[in-house]
Amino acid sequence: MNGIKEGWFSEISELWPGQCMSLEVDKVLHHEKSKYQDILVFKSKTFGNVLVLDGVIQCTEKDEFSYQEMLAHLPLCSHKNPKKVLIIGGGDGGVARELLKHDCLEEVHMCEIDEAVVEVSKKYLPGMASSFSNPRLTLHIMDGFEYMGQHQGEFDVIITDSSDPIGPASSLFQKQYYELMKKALKPNGIVCSQGECMWIHMDLIKSMLDFCVTLYPSVSYAYTSIPTYPCGQIGFVLCSLDPEVDFENPLRPFSTDELKELNMKYYNTDMHKSAFKLPEFAKKVLKCRKSSTSNGC
Amino acid sequence: MNGIKEGWFSEISELWPGQCMSLEVDKVLHHEKSKYQDILVFKSKTFGNVLVLDGVIQCTEKDEFSYQEMLAHLPLCSHKNPKKVLIIGGGDGGVARELLKHDCLEEVHMCEIDEAVVEVSKKYLPGMASSFSNPRLTLHIMDGFEYMGQHQGEFDVIITDSSDPIGPASSLFQKQYYELMKKALKPNGIVCSQGECMWIHMDLIKSMLDFCVTLYPSVSYAYTSIPTYPCGQIGFVLCSLDPEVDFENPLRPFSTDELKELNMKYYNTDMHKSAFKLPEFAKKVLKCRKSSTSNGC
Repeated sequence: MNGIKEGWFSEISELWPGQCMSLEVDKVLHHEKSKYQDILVFKSKTFGNVLVLDGVIQCTEKDEFSYQEMLAHLPLCSHKNPKKVLIIGGGDGGVARELLKHDCLEEVHMCEIDEAVVEVSKKYLPGMASSFSNPRLTLHIMDGFEYMGQHQGEFDVIITDSSDPIGPASSLFQKQYYELMKKALKPNGIVCSQGECMWIHMDLIKSMLDFCVTLYPSVSYAYTSIPTYPCGQIGFVLCSLDPEVDFENPLRPFSTDELKELNMKYYNTDMHKSAFKLPEFAKKVLKCRKSSTSNGC
Repeated sequence: MNGIKEGWFSEISELWPGQCMSLEVDKVLHHEKSKYQDILVFKSKTFGNVLVLDGVIQCTEKDEFSYQEMLAHLPLCSHKNPKKVLIIGGGDGGVARELLKHDCLEEVHMCEIDEAVVEVSKKYLPGMASSFSNPRLTLHIMDGFEYMGQHQGEFDVIITDSSDPIGPASSLFQKQYYELMKKALKPNGIVCSQGECMWIHMDLIKSMLDFCVTLYPSVSYAYTSIPTYPCGQIGFVLCSLDPEVDFENPLRPFSTDELKELNMKYYNTDMHKSAFKLPEFAKKVLKCRKSSTSNGC
């Protein structure tokens, strides 16, 4: 059932055993094996163009905004005065598009390991990849570990927009990576990373939060709704060097006019606050982390 | 791809074109054509037992609690003093299980048109159907329209736990049905109905809210996350005859101890409040209903 069969793309993976999302294919637009992964782009019948890496849906034009907006604005609106931001991954350009809505940002650096992802996104996901023409964005085609090793104490916010903890992105879910990000942050810096799904990866999330609280004085977990990720939901791990940070209440909220002008489709201050409210089954597992004041702790 | 093929059940429907959720089948437990619909129950590999009506997943043992808890407790916790409740549909018993957690309820009536759904649920979904042995619950096997015609001004809350607006449940999404519920309510009564998904059925939701505001002084829309419904999300249409009702802030919140004692897995007061916070794309379409003070109006 994996791959494309009888006109449908199906996403079977050992990461979510026993369940599978399928999208009807209108036309395959691109397929290659890059240096790092299998890259597929197809036009779907009802979700616009779809980017697939190693068999896993990364984004669709219909619903990408939910993930991109929340991954970018949750940390950015929680930081007092962000000027320089680093994106690890994010080669489709969607998170950069959202970050660049913050006029206060002087520099956005993106460190994407696979140039082929950037190239196909420019061609087939122009609504996301438009950000690459912005002069405030600098693209570095290299490994995130290597880049951060060379850039310590530089960033106000580091966003990790990665694929799942299998294949090229697996190291991005480990303690060593969070130690490296910590060193690359400025004082009071914030990290926000793709944090998998409470319905299927609670053990992984708990283990990540457990090592995060040994590194950062403030740690929290949020999530958003997104139809084409497994179980229709994806989470975010947020950490700050500022022990006083209040992730749940944005320091710099967007006004109603700004939301309209910036073409926000998902994010608003209510969605920001709600993103941290956990259902009982998750609260029981995740709430007792000693450094956090969020999520009911 | 529809039905069971190569060990997977796939849910293709014209209600969500171009997308499909599949669950891996361990064993088919039951299959029949009842008087009203095709009823399938299978044991899945990772979601427990699954009830399917006319090819559409109704509930799985893994995630049913999210829907059942929210459908029951959003209206119940918003009512000052509920004593008598009617469920239309809900033959699996899950919503009744949640309602019966409210000690203040003296009578819960369930009007389910298809007795076969009740019977298979008793056999294969015991965690939900356990409610049928509760003496406060009375089951009526009949059409909801007919039942309500005979019971006017009787109920504090009416909950509609229906399948989708195609087949036997299609009339439950129409104005005539909301008129009938209005007559069956006591003063200050509340209705709460399955309200489809913002990501795919925004036109239907808008049209429902549009006719609801012509009938009820208070109307609002909430939603919950649930992996095995299309797009991982399902909504709820809430209406009240009480113009002062404040759906977003529960009048009778559960305490932390109660949540634990009642084995709540999803619902808590934070989730109640968050359920009414709409993302921008939905707020733009749904917010301007004149009778509502909720959802940013």
